[in-house]
Amino acid sequence: MSAVILDGKKLAAEKETILKEKVSALRARGVIPGLSVVLVGEDPASVIYVRSKEKACERLGIRSLARRLPADISQTELEKELRALASNPEVHGILLQLPLPRGLDADAAIACIPPEKDVDGFTDLSAGRLANGMAGFRPCTPVGILELIRMSGVPMDGKHAVVVGRSTIVGKPCAMMLLEENCTVTLCHSHTRNLAEMTRQADILVAATGRAHLITEDMIKPGAVVIDAGIAHLDGHLTGDVEPEGGRRAAGYLSPVPGGAGPMTIAALMMNTVEAAERFENV
Amino acid sequence: MSAVILDGKKLAAEKETILKEKVSALRARGVIPGLSVVLVGEDPASVIYVRSKEKACERLGIRSLARRLPADISQTELEKELRALASNPEVHGILLQLPLPRGLDADAAIACIPPEKDVDGFTDLSAGRLANGMAGFRPCTPVGILELIRMSGVPMDGKHAVVVGRSTIVGKPCAMMLLEENCTVTLCHSHTRNLAEMTRQADILVAATGRAHLITEDMIKPGAVVIDAGIAHLDGHLTGDVEPEGGRRAAGYLSPVPGGAGPMTIAALMMNTVEAAERFENV
Repeated sequence: MSAVILDGKKLAAEKETILKEKVSALRARGVIPGLSVVLVGEDPASVIYVRSKEKACERLGIRSLARRLPADISQTELEKELRALASNPEVHGILLQLPLPRGLDADAAIACIPPEKDVDGFTDLSAGRLANGMAGFRPCTPVGILELIRMSGVPMDGKHAVVVGRSTIVGKPCAMMLLEENCTVTLCHSHTRNLAEMTRQADILVAATGRAHLITEDMIKPGAVVIDAGIAHLDGHLTGDVEPEGGRRAAGYLSPVPGGAGPMTIAALMMNTVEAAERFENV
Repeated sequence: MSAVILDGKKLAAEKETILKEKVSALRARGVIPGLSVVLVGEDPASVIYVRSKEKACERLGIRSLARRLPADISQTELEKELRALASNPEVHGILLQLPLPRGLDADAAIACIPPEKDVDGFTDLSAGRLANGMAGFRPCTPVGILELIRMSGVPMDGKHAVVVGRSTIVGKPCAMMLLEENCTVTLCHSHTRNLAEMTRQADILVAATGRAHLITEDMIKPGAVVIDAGIAHLDGHLTGDVEPEGGRRAAGYLSPVPGGAGPMTIAALMMNTVEAAERFENV
């Protein structure tokens, strides 16, 4: 058996085709969707991520209103910048690139982003709306993960989904979103005993730990949908949480790294931004 | 084998002893803790719940500022009342008794309660703070459930906790709180297939569905900590989600209904209210 590969790059391109039409329609009505990615300092990984988000904006016709702020900016100044973007009608989505340089309070900064512009879904209010089953923006990586699962064609309702990793930006919101799809959901993490015993029960397995090749062939239920949302470096190569050869043998469907959850995260950000612009238009 | 009974009435009385001292200390410093329970209409069950909350306030020396509003109140008037309580310095905690009469928007009403007075932990912001691992008020029934688990003396770290029921007031926040305690957490619900297979894995089992005697002896791992947070009526008697005789035989520790999660929910509300008053004092 060999897993069907869930090609995130291809799926992201399909999403972009749909989004381009939506952006054209918005522009025809005089609304130019605008995304402001705020980068504080020059963390090399962050610079690359921000650049790829800006490129996606360019491809789709979304106005990119990037803000580059110095690493030694004060908390007060940072919050002032974010509040200015919050009240700027040309900006429909605000994304504060994390991590922030030392000394800055990310939670307090994120709290300056109003829910209607929180396209990253990181604010407490957006997280609470997800937990309470209310409408709101969901974090981009979990949105992309759910799209990849849908790509498999395997229905989620009643399935046992196991999420490994409990970060506030991937694992926890992903668990809540799988619950919204009526999965039975198990959340595993570094304190979990018998991880393999848990993952082997998964009809749908989402790995989001950043620990290279944590998930091996024997930990996968034969035929399962396996989404690899990990990013790690091993021997100078980019790889994921799932050992790829064993993953391909055991899984029914597998999203690869690179080319799986990564491109879908960017696509989800664009989906959220276009939705923010559409909602803005209808206020 | 016969389960140790986790006596919620006794534990609640112990909590009250500690709270009484805290209230006395606050009063000695000129702060009288105040809780406003808002009841709209005259739903008979709600009237009983509200009365028991007011009685607990009386026992502890907490000022009860109850608001009784007519069932035909408009949404605008209800929100005006809640905003008045929000800005009233004598009120440290606000609880809007649910369900509201038909025609009223509970979500919009709850959103009028500021996080520092949200002693019920029901607002989106409080739910998000829980999901994002930030300080804030947690919903009272899950707070009580965790106290009952602690009463057993069984450490939670690394244990597999299974929660049955995914309400926003019990199941979901309880799952998030067990995750904070480093449990591996599985959330089951009406769409779960093979419920017994899931519950039999639970070192800690929390049942919160309101379906009388859903959990039978064969569904309990021998020796498990079982918390019954269900309330149902069967043959004219109050009972819980766990079939009591089978539960006592299989579990290592069992919280009964009545006398388990019920009294601990009230105690948790009092704990949150006193904490709100203490925080108010320190602002």
